[in-house]
Amino acid sequence: MGSANNGKKKKVTFDDIAKYTGFSKTTISRYFNFPDSLTLDNQEIISNALIDLDYKENKVARILANGKTEFIGVIIPNMLNHYYSEMLNRILQTYGDFGYKFLVFLGNEQEETERKYIQELLAYNIEGLIVMSFTLSSEELAKLPIPVVTIEREDRYVSSVNTDNYMGGVQAASLLARHNCDILVHINTADTTPERPAYGRIRGFLDICEEKKLNHRLIYVERGDSFEEMQESLGEVFRELDTSYSGMKKGIFVSGDTRANILLNFLIRKYGSLPEDYRIVGFDDSPISREAVIPISTVGQQIDRMAYEAVSLLVEQMDERRKRKPVPLQEPVHRVITPILIRRETTEQKN
Amino acid sequence: MGSANNGKKKKVTFDDIAKYTGFSKTTISRYFNFPDSLTLDNQEIISNALIDLDYKENKVARILANGKTEFIGVIIPNMLNHYYSEMLNRILQTYGDFGYKFLVFLGNEQEETERKYIQELLAYNIEGLIVMSFTLSSEELAKLPIPVVTIEREDRYVSSVNTDNYMGGVQAASLLARHNCDILVHINTADTTPERPAYGRIRGFLDICEEKKLNHRLIYVERGDSFEEMQESLGEVFRELDTSYSGMKKGIFVSGDTRANILLNFLIRKYGSLPEDYRIVGFDDSPISREAVIPISTVGQQIDRMAYEAVSLLVEQMDERRKRKPVPLQEPVHRVITPILIRRETTEQKN
Repeated sequence: MGSANNGKKKKVTFDDIAKYTGFSKTTISRYFNFPDSLTLDNQEIISNALIDLDYKENKVARILANGKTEFIGVIIPNMLNHYYSEMLNRILQTYGDFGYKFLVFLGNEQEETERKYIQELLAYNIEGLIVMSFTLSSEELAKLPIPVVTIEREDRYVSSVNTDNYMGGVQAASLLARHNCDILVHINTADTTPERPAYGRIRGFLDICEEKKLNHRLIYVERGDSFEEMQESLGEVFRELDTSYSGMKKGIFVSGDTRANILLNFLIRKYGSLPEDYRIVGFDDSPISREAVIPISTVGQQIDRMAYEAVSLLVEQMDERRKRKPVPLQEPVHRVITPILIRRETTEQKN
Repeated sequence: MGSANNGKKKKVTFDDIAKYTGFSKTTISRYFNFPDSLTLDNQEIISNALIDLDYKENKVARILANGKTEFIGVIIPNMLNHYYSEMLNRILQTYGDFGYKFLVFLGNEQEETERKYIQELLAYNIEGLIVMSFTLSSEELAKLPIPVVTIEREDRYVSSVNTDNYMGGVQAASLLARHNCDILVHINTADTTPERPAYGRIRGFLDICEEKKLNHRLIYVERGDSFEEMQESLGEVFRELDTSYSGMKKGIFVSGDTRANILLNFLIRKYGSLPEDYRIVGFDDSPISREAVIPISTVGQQIDRMAYEAVSLLVEQMDERRKRKPVPLQEPVHRVITPILIRRETTEQKN
């Protein structure tokens, strides 16, 4: 079939493959869309023919034939929080495992823009969606005509991958309790309502404090739309704690390493090092926890595993839909990943 | 046209629109592909008909008709360096301005995977490519059948957006010179070869030092594949500088805020605050420069503007290709963005 390789290449069509192999065009089409409906021998004959003919797949034609694009949409709320950029990082790295390509959207909480973006993606026949933003309800997401998996957000009606946040709260409070802190403080954001997975951190913290009858306090800060806003609200919290609990050993569990780092920096700037009467535990194990001036102990979300599970949960559902008689999920699947407590210098000082 | 809205919706075809408006199907097709070839009145008639008929665009059919997907591929080398996640952040945010959707790939310097990914994207008819990774030469990228724009990498044969790195080096060295430092040090990575835009930082630094006859030194570190590797190589540099130039006022210009932060942390951990005989200037103005324990002075790349320029440069070329007689660029276009020196506490201490 040298002609296909001489000079300007002519596109090899299903017709060409049919003629070359002696099969019908329907059989060739079945090879691409339902390979399992052919015998292994026939699959091999066609597969060899494609090599001989130097067949270049036309993905767009294939999308028209079977409606599949190998695209997954990813919606993240922001990159201000290092947790999201790390999760995105890990999701993108699954290309090597699954071959899916990712269309990434940054939500910024604009409901209408997010809806419009999703509608656009649907018009392009993307196969699945990973949602980390909080903007649209899981009830709305569940109505989309494609599989959806959420990560660490309200997930009542859709499949999801979350950290075992309750266990994370338990781990953090227990560690601070073991350090004999006089007061245990948990700092979380005002928007952490009971339907969000992160609310488990509060429950776990409170349960341990109540069980062990520990002096404790829960502080809510505004989420903030910029680093400066986060810094401002945590600055107030820092000055208040530093004054009110002067002379007491303070164990502070901060929901999120980005915020834990801000609090740590206030301390270092005031005292030059982390005072003996402070213990800090963050949450996430995002890069900033290692890059901080003093490496921050943290409840480590297994971000790499969560990203992998989210993509693989989606791939299972997308694969199901490729079958001739797909059986869709009857109930959403919720995978829960155990967090791993990582002790670094903000709880285990060397001096 | 109530029937289109009752019960299960039937897809509205070009035929339906033609019948409804009285135009030919060719005219309807021209409306979608070359709207300017119709009078404004006729454009309006068809546009209103689409609303009446509740027409849902089938993007895949449209791709087949005009070969355009409104997809742009983005290749970033890693997210270890905060500069890349910030640039990606800003690129994604241009969706609101241009409507293009981004397929994001994380290179990790695997040449073959990167080539395979690009080939896949081409098979899907993406319209343009933004490349930040260093893996493939601009000569190879220029041969791709779609417009390519690079950011801050070797760009001889392709269009690009870069910071004026030379000016950045001049700004940093001049600032340190004004602080009467006894020794000016520039730390860069061993892979910053003359064909990379970042090499301009070295030239700018050296030119100022030579012109002003300043005691200076250039130190290369390995790039490193992880935060720990970066930390290790900078730890050696820190100990060496701290010993060799003891008692001298040291002005250190570090190529990249991620590394400047590591160096700063070594200082704070040793001295509890930034000693009077140290001045540090980073490069990028990436988030870590603000989130550091002491906010880092930096040669600010205008990352938001660079991202916008890269996408708009690409959009211009993609728009050109939509014309019936496109005139491709004869020469690559190189847009250079002026950096802005941002003075923070590592050069202007309050005490």
